[in-house]
Amino acid sequence: MDPIRIAIVGMGKIARDQHLPAIAGNRAFGLAATVSPHDPGVEGVPHFAGLDDLLASGPAVDAVALCTPPQVRHDLASSALARGIHVFLEKPPGATLGEVAALQAQADKVGASLFAAWHSRFAAGVAPARAWLAERTIERVTITWREDVRVWHPGQAWIWEPGGLGVFDPGINALSIVTHILPRPIFLRGAKLEIPANRVAPIAADMTFSDTGGAALHMDLDWRQTGPQSWDIVVETDAGTLKLSQGGAVLTLPTGTDHAEDHEYPALYARFATLIRTGRSDVDVAPLRLVADAFLRGTRVTTNPFVD
Amino acid sequence: MDPIRIAIVGMGKIARDQHLPAIAGNRAFGLAATVSPHDPGVEGVPHFAGLDDLLASGPAVDAVALCTPPQVRHDLASSALARGIHVFLEKPPGATLGEVAALQAQADKVGASLFAAWHSRFAAGVAPARAWLAERTIERVTITWREDVRVWHPGQAWIWEPGGLGVFDPGINALSIVTHILPRPIFLRGAKLEIPANRVAPIAADMTFSDTGGAALHMDLDWRQTGPQSWDIVVETDAGTLKLSQGGAVLTLPTGTDHAEDHEYPALYARFATLIRTGRSDVDVAPLRLVADAFLRGTRVTTNPFVD
Repeated sequence: MDPIRIAIVGMGKIARDQHLPAIAGNRAFGLAATVSPHDPGVEGVPHFAGLDDLLASGPAVDAVALCTPPQVRHDLASSALARGIHVFLEKPPGATLGEVAALQAQADKVGASLFAAWHSRFAAGVAPARAWLAERTIERVTITWREDVRVWHPGQAWIWEPGGLGVFDPGINALSIVTHILPRPIFLRGAKLEIPANRVAPIAADMTFSDTGGAALHMDLDWRQTGPQSWDIVVETDAGTLKLSQGGAVLTLPTGTDHAEDHEYPALYARFATLIRTGRSDVDVAPLRLVADAFLRGTRVTTNPFVD
Repeated sequence: MDPIRIAIVGMGKIARDQHLPAIAGNRAFGLAATVSPHDPGVEGVPHFAGLDDLLASGPAVDAVALCTPPQVRHDLASSALARGIHVFLEKPPGATLGEVAALQAQADKVGASLFAAWHSRFAAGVAPARAWLAERTIERVTITWREDVRVWHPGQAWIWEPGGLGVFDPGINALSIVTHILPRPIFLRGAKLEIPANRVAPIAADMTFSDTGGAALHMDLDWRQTGPQSWDIVVETDAGTLKLSQGGAVLTLPTGTDHAEDHEYPALYARFATLIRTGRSDVDVAPLRLVADAFLRGTRVTTNPFVD
């Protein structure tokens, strides 16, 4: 089979750190173009300032990976789908639930593959955690997601704007794992969002959820963590405690601890290739729906201004 | 067929004004009980302080109509569904999207009917508006929903609490109509929410949407309207302008104006009976999803305190 000719749109940190190496390492894909108004692109690969320029005058592409901020993702995806081009959406898949639903309907109509990628679901410990939990009764879940925004999101103004999700940008990674590994659906019970006085997006959130079997979940999400960082999910069950740490990379079961190599983005691209080859889409909005519910249902408190 | 034995849970204004007469007027139903901690109930009908009391020691019921504030609706619905009892959810169907999805999964599992009722969709002008618009190209939609909260929601503290939606409690009626009459899905482009300094819920909102064909929608939603009230939807098309006014009761087409009798709640109960008799559910979350998207994506501005 010919390689899938793919363009990367939005040449920011995640595109350079993860997408370029994952595409280079997968023979199913060939990098056909890059798109960014700011970035010089990659030597030897055609580069365009905007997706419209690529579509109007560039080389043919079969697929695009959208790595832009979420606020502009819908219109780019819709332009691509309108030409039957397959679309990989970085997380979160959009700025609203409605626009993602509209893209899904469009993809179904034109027969293109739409992939809402949740990279944390492909962390090494996640698949075995899901398999182990499938047999258990869940009693309690504790999610601690505390990181230093200055270290991980320096100068990313969009992340603080409406549609940028604030601290839910990393928090949605935890939610993508939890909604994948637990055997039952979860829903929000309550949320308290802390908003810096000079910002519109939350810097911290304290949330409770239930699963449909009655298990209680608590999530502590905070962007003000200095020193050691925490990306931990602890699941207490009738057969002992499971812990996923380092964002899903390390899995501890009652029988011991496993720490496998990181393969999130290579696994995402393998999945995307399979979706394209089999004519399917994969658009699970459950993590974004939980965030929307937290904004809808949560209380808000104003906290200290945040200065980058 | 024996009548469907139904209990009303939450004997507030909407239950007395609309649900009791609609049930009394439909031979498919028999009122078996009422439930409310505050209300004395209806003479000659068994009354209970809570749903648990009814389920533990009351007469058998086949269905419940949940007319409580949305914040407590999920747990009541889940208790009923767990016993195979059909559930009618007043609008909005819940305080979050996730809890409604969980109820839908539960209803499917137990084979009970779940009905997310959007009463404005049964206003007299809505069905003919939908039929007329099905053939048209939509160019522009203008929604003006301006009412006086002091007149329509006196003393309803829950409506200002998280999960109570504030001005979106009436606004979701407009959204339920628009998502029903337009031939294509719509999604949010932007929202500005005005929050009184002493409240957590919005008192006004200015929103823009697109449909998937590119038509532009604008919605002006306000609870501070004194004097004449406005519940109007104007749809400009390639074949002229359609106007729904008085909340959907009055339909004006290029050919003239129709104003039929109000039959929203009788139509809702006829629909609920059909769902039960045919073993189906009807749970469209599109209106609530648009509201969640407005909370997620919108900007917020603080406005004058609101005192009842």
